[in-house]
Amino acid sequence: MKLGLVTSNRHKLEEYRQGLEPLGVEVEHLDVDCDEIQTETLQDVVRSCLDQLKGAGLSNFMLDDSGLFVPSLNGFPGVYSAYIMDTIGCRGMLRLLEGLGREARFECCIGVCSDELGEFTVTGVSPGMIVREERGTGGFGYDPIFVPEGHELTFAQMDMASKNELSHRGKAMVLLAREMERRMGGRK
Amino acid sequence: MKLGLVTSNRHKLEEYRQGLEPLGVEVEHLDVDCDEIQTETLQDVVRSCLDQLKGAGLSNFMLDDSGLFVPSLNGFPGVYSAYIMDTIGCRGMLRLLEGLGREARFECCIGVCSDELGEFTVTGVSPGMIVREERGTGGFGYDPIFVPEGHELTFAQMDMASKNELSHRGKAMVLLAREMERRMGGRK
Repeated sequence: MKLGLVTSNRHKLEEYRQGLEPLGVEVEHLDVDCDEIQTETLQDVVRSCLDQLKGAGLSNFMLDDSGLFVPSLNGFPGVYSAYIMDTIGCRGMLRLLEGLGREARFECCIGVCSDELGEFTVTGVSPGMIVREERGTGGFGYDPIFVPEGHELTFAQMDMASKNELSHRGKAMVLLAREMERRMGGRK
Repeated sequence: MKLGLVTSNRHKLEEYRQGLEPLGVEVEHLDVDCDEIQTETLQDVVRSCLDQLKGAGLSNFMLDDSGLFVPSLNGFPGVYSAYIMDTIGCRGMLRLLEGLGREARFECCIGVCSDELGEFTVTGVSPGMIVREERGTGGFGYDPIFVPEGHELTFAQMDMASKNELSHRGKAMVLLAREMERRMGGRK
């Protein structure tokens, strides 16, 4: 089975290939655009993109969206995490959190639209804390200020393999493989 | 001529009626939804909504979108002003601006799609400053921390008439009326 991955990120493509190869799923790069809508949840963004691309005649594809959610900031930066990173950055986040609860979670929602497997979404969650200062030079985005639950290092201080295992996208990938296997099994 | 105003805000309807009545334009309330997309400018949000609603078969309508843009925060909160008000609020904005430039501007973009007048957008801008603490109880959103250029009071400290005259929406309304008149004149 072949599935197209809608992304402009070559690195992501590799992650999907590694995650889905064991299932016999071939992942191809799909260079199309969709308008991400303004809404509260990643699932709504992803569902809207699935609908838009289906409406444009596409089939057998998947895409994802990720965000950081901080309960003491009412979910901010949430679905706008990328924009907010580009504007106020980690420094802005640290200012906003002075004196507030530092619990946070990364979420990654993957949506699939497949002739064989149907349409579905899975969401991987990585709970953790926002630390008091940036640490580490790896990763990107909020990685230097996020420590996953039960660990001491930020995502930016970890090697790629450790981060992939703990990260929201890593977890979403596991859920995705599991759901695909379940749906493939149902067809036998 | 009749134009539908896409809004869930009754108060806005009144403002449009007052602004366009002198031109003989009757403004009706239009209760439809459009998905605001994630993008950098209000004009792109408004254009996308015009396209969506035209695509759904609507004609003779207008809509607007507003935001606060702070250059020292790279434009933040920008097109996500409403979401960011709901999450970090004025308090969060004041924290982010400690030690940074306080220049800011409100923008309001109005988009029109009319059989008679064609399709166009106008953008009203109200330049000013973010003050150091919230002042006043009127208005909503960022009004308590915004003082328009050349004035001392925040929008939240002004009476409605003064605010409407200085505000981004008030200015956009003037531009809208002017552009409509121009286009009406062109048809004579």
